[in-house]
Amino acid sequence: MSLRTVLTIAGSDSGAGAGIQADLKTIAAHHCYGTSVITAITAQNTLGVQSVEGISPGMVAAQIDSVLDDIGADAIKTGMLFGEETIRAVVRSLEKRYGKAAQGGRDAAKLVLDPVCVSTSGHSLLPLDAVDSLRTELLPWATVVTPNIPEAEFLCGWNKGSIETVDDMKRCAAELAKKGVRWVYLKGGHMPLPKGDNGEKVVVDLLLDGESGEASMEERRFLDVKNTHGTGCTLAAAVASGLAHGKTVADAVSDAGDYVAAAIAASYPVGRGAGPVNHFHSLMPRSLPLPNHHSPTPFTDYLIRASGDAWTRYVNHEFPNSLAAGTAKLEAFLHFIQQDYHFLKQYARSNSLAAYKTEDMALMAGSNLIVDDVIKETEMHVKYCETYGISRDQLQAVPESVTNIAYTRYVLDVSARGDLLDARVVTAPCLIGYGHVGARLLSSTPGVTVNSNPDLNPYWGWIREYGGEWYQGCVKSGIELLEQTLAKSPVSAQRLDELARIFTKATELEIAFWDAAVEAGKKTRDEVMRHEGLPV
Amino acid sequence: MSLRTVLTIAGSDSGAGAGIQADLKTIAAHHCYGTSVITAITAQNTLGVQSVEGISPGMVAAQIDSVLDDIGADAIKTGMLFGEETIRAVVRSLEKRYGKAAQGGRDAAKLVLDPVCVSTSGHSLLPLDAVDSLRTELLPWATVVTPNIPEAEFLCGWNKGSIETVDDMKRCAAELAKKGVRWVYLKGGHMPLPKGDNGEKVVVDLLLDGESGEASMEERRFLDVKNTHGTGCTLAAAVASGLAHGKTVADAVSDAGDYVAAAIAASYPVGRGAGPVNHFHSLMPRSLPLPNHHSPTPFTDYLIRASGDAWTRYVNHEFPNSLAAGTAKLEAFLHFIQQDYHFLKQYARSNSLAAYKTEDMALMAGSNLIVDDVIKETEMHVKYCETYGISRDQLQAVPESVTNIAYTRYVLDVSARGDLLDARVVTAPCLIGYGHVGARLLSSTPGVTVNSNPDLNPYWGWIREYGGEWYQGCVKSGIELLEQTLAKSPVSAQRLDELARIFTKATELEIAFWDAAVEAGKKTRDEVMRHEGLPV
Repeated sequence: MSLRTVLTIAGSDSGAGAGIQADLKTIAAHHCYGTSVITAITAQNTLGVQSVEGISPGMVAAQIDSVLDDIGADAIKTGMLFGEETIRAVVRSLEKRYGKAAQGGRDAAKLVLDPVCVSTSGHSLLPLDAVDSLRTELLPWATVVTPNIPEAEFLCGWNKGSIETVDDMKRCAAELAKKGVRWVYLKGGHMPLPKGDNGEKVVVDLLLDGESGEASMEERRFLDVKNTHGTGCTLAAAVASGLAHGKTVADAVSDAGDYVAAAIAASYPVGRGAGPVNHFHSLMPRSLPLPNHHSPTPFTDYLIRASGDAWTRYVNHEFPNSLAAGTAKLEAFLHFIQQDYHFLKQYARSNSLAAYKTEDMALMAGSNLIVDDVIKETEMHVKYCETYGISRDQLQAVPESVTNIAYTRYVLDVSARGDLLDARVVTAPCLIGYGHVGARLLSSTPGVTVNSNPDLNPYWGWIREYGGEWYQGCVKSGIELLEQTLAKSPVSAQRLDELARIFTKATELEIAFWDAAVEAGKKTRDEVMRHEGLPV
Repeated sequence: MSLRTVLTIAGSDSGAGAGIQADLKTIAAHHCYGTSVITAITAQNTLGVQSVEGISPGMVAAQIDSVLDDIGADAIKTGMLFGEETIRAVVRSLEKRYGKAAQGGRDAAKLVLDPVCVSTSGHSLLPLDAVDSLRTELLPWATVVTPNIPEAEFLCGWNKGSIETVDDMKRCAAELAKKGVRWVYLKGGHMPLPKGDNGEKVVVDLLLDGESGEASMEERRFLDVKNTHGTGCTLAAAVASGLAHGKTVADAVSDAGDYVAAAIAASYPVGRGAGPVNHFHSLMPRSLPLPNHHSPTPFTDYLIRASGDAWTRYVNHEFPNSLAAGTAKLEAFLHFIQQDYHFLKQYARSNSLAAYKTEDMALMAGSNLIVDDVIKETEMHVKYCETYGISRDQLQAVPESVTNIAYTRYVLDVSARGDLLDARVVTAPCLIGYGHVGARLLSSTPGVTVNSNPDLNPYWGWIREYGGEWYQGCVKSGIELLEQTLAKSPVSAQRLDELARIFTKATELEIAFWDAAVEAGKKTRDEVMRHEGLPV
């Protein structure tokens, strides 16, 4: 994966609501990689600009070179440029890289020029003599210039307050376009216009095509709100990000306008004055990291970690240990294997229900494969039982125990009421846990007695089945399916919590299932039957 | 909603992989509001540092004042401090605000000190004479200092390469702690240690409590990767964000270590050298904006917008228009009202199924209320039919039409296979659309003929019902429920697309339902029955 890059050339705002700070946040929110060239440092907060210190024009040029020589830029945005010499340094750097503006340089640079002259709080950010350089030298480099009404008047040399109507906006934009800029986006935020009779006001933003002379307008509801610090920077950076993504200018400004409107509406209180907008309103926390080198199966790992102690007790349970050692009572094993046969029937139904829950044929095929494997597994159970003289018919006739019903109907209910992901998660502890147990006992764990001589240990076949290649392959593809299902549609943190609770509950029901087998080995057949709510 | 604030005092990296740029990204990724005080400008990229220019110590102090006087800081992080005078200016600013370090100032400032001396690329970032000020004046202000091994050796005055074991790390950390810092977090990234026989390496990070002298260790897999530019800045900013959120130092450093490891693993190619880490790996695009002034019902608006032309054709359908005008054929109305009665039965079942899909009693109560309202609505249908001499029994016996079965069984299937949100979305076009239509026709739309005299228009009662207070209230609470269901558990963009497709399909089936009523008015009873697949 590679990212589009956007370079901002602007001042630094210590309060981080405007300047390169606002630009970098905006660029990041648009999934681009932002770089920054600082032209001046301001000591600034939501109440105003307390102090300004310029960076030397040579250092501005050095920063531009460092960025463009290595990282490059799919679009560039300029904001506060501090002074005439800085503007000249920027223009020289652009010429060095892209040639003359009029000879293809302008179109190659994709420059969005935010003509910052005065801060929202009223502080002058560009000396008068620099305005001329901006007009004559930098404007011809701009793909889009994004003035507000006072800036547009200022750049055209009109008196303050000359623009009073949308027609005035059009005339002013047309005059600006003559200076060589390709598109003029004149923002009407300073001129709210009444709309209808209910006191509602709207603002009109105007986009003028410098080549055809055609203008288009967009209207948005005017909100008389306090937190508008840095909206100009934010808008221009959003336009530049749009251009970097290859959007047309018309789409880039329209989307940027929506982004800023939502960012203003979603702002939170910061400082005592005009606060910043909320640049990250369009992002939310990812509830789980994407699979990576550190963690190739983050969802599975999360579920296991979240089930904590229950998982440890499950995969280290005394019952499978007693099978590995060959010390399990035959009554325990027979109770287990017969109930497990009936468990698997409902487990297969639950996986079929998972297949019903999707219209994605690959995910459906994944579920179907699990059902096939479960059917194979039940046939192995039939063979075990036959070894001990229990026929297929007798096995079929064994009633389901209370523990078995609790577990299987919980699995079916979760699968029925939830979506595909719920169905996958509730069936995961069985699939993955038996894999862990089989692998652990086959490779012999310190502290666990293992008797791997099939002549001496009648249960060794069971260990070999779950630790062996076939079942381990099932586990691997089951985990992949689980990870894919989540990766195809990531979920919120709340939903993840819910899924972890389901996984933990199913794990606890696995423990109860094995506990019941151990109990069966300690009791007479009648006691077992009574304990499990079955007819004696 | 208010955010925790974190101030970074550091250099600017034009390539934005380190310095205040990395810090601000890290702070944002931790859901804090970041502010920045710039101490120096670097012309820098992924290949190295090409040039450095310091900011005057007075301007550094001015920036700190601007931030702390207005926005404040729940934690502070320092990085590259450029020189002795800058360090003194920072210390004076801290004293001005928090008093003496040893008299509670240190604990109030919550300062994370990243002792930046040398960049990853080998560029010296702090003159030797400034190291003494850092050691004697700033270290006593630090709640945590976060050196890597070369920095720790340097700060202790040890020879380069003195630290070769974890025990050396402990001794060095203990010596640093004596300088007044509360916790030392010594990062072992420069000293990968072999683990086991398979060539795997790990790094050990050490946290030393300066008061008790106790050390704890955390081990992470060593990854020999290229994109580690700015990891030191990122880690310290993550620790400061953790402290701002009120975490303990132990939790803050452990979580920061995980965050950095994941950021390294999720990095993408930027530039030709040591690229930046991916600071935003923990965020994902929000598929819909949160409700705000501009858009109080974003989910409903999105679904309606996504269904586009279908929605417009539905809510402006000729059939309800003919009811408002009083021009509908009686056959059309009777066909419609009888099929709608049977539709509502399945619609109620679908809403009951939605109740089954949740364990949240408030959401369950919401669904239940809808079922109650639908039952009321069917009773109104019974009364209409009785007016026209159709008894309750006769109404019950009317077979469901093919159009009706298609719509209702689609609704039930989506509700059964999906989760609560699917069930809500598939039932939304009926609920909301009838509300739109009723409100539109009751308030008289230009271009639509309305006959609101109940003596002349036999269908006016129907318009009054759906445009009236009771049904409009049902629509309002239904929309709230829909918005809440999504707000409780936001979904991915992919999932949102899927939901929009379901909403559109249900809208198209609504159109088909009204088309069938119009058709019924044009045909004989037998034709209608045949067309709808019913016995003649």
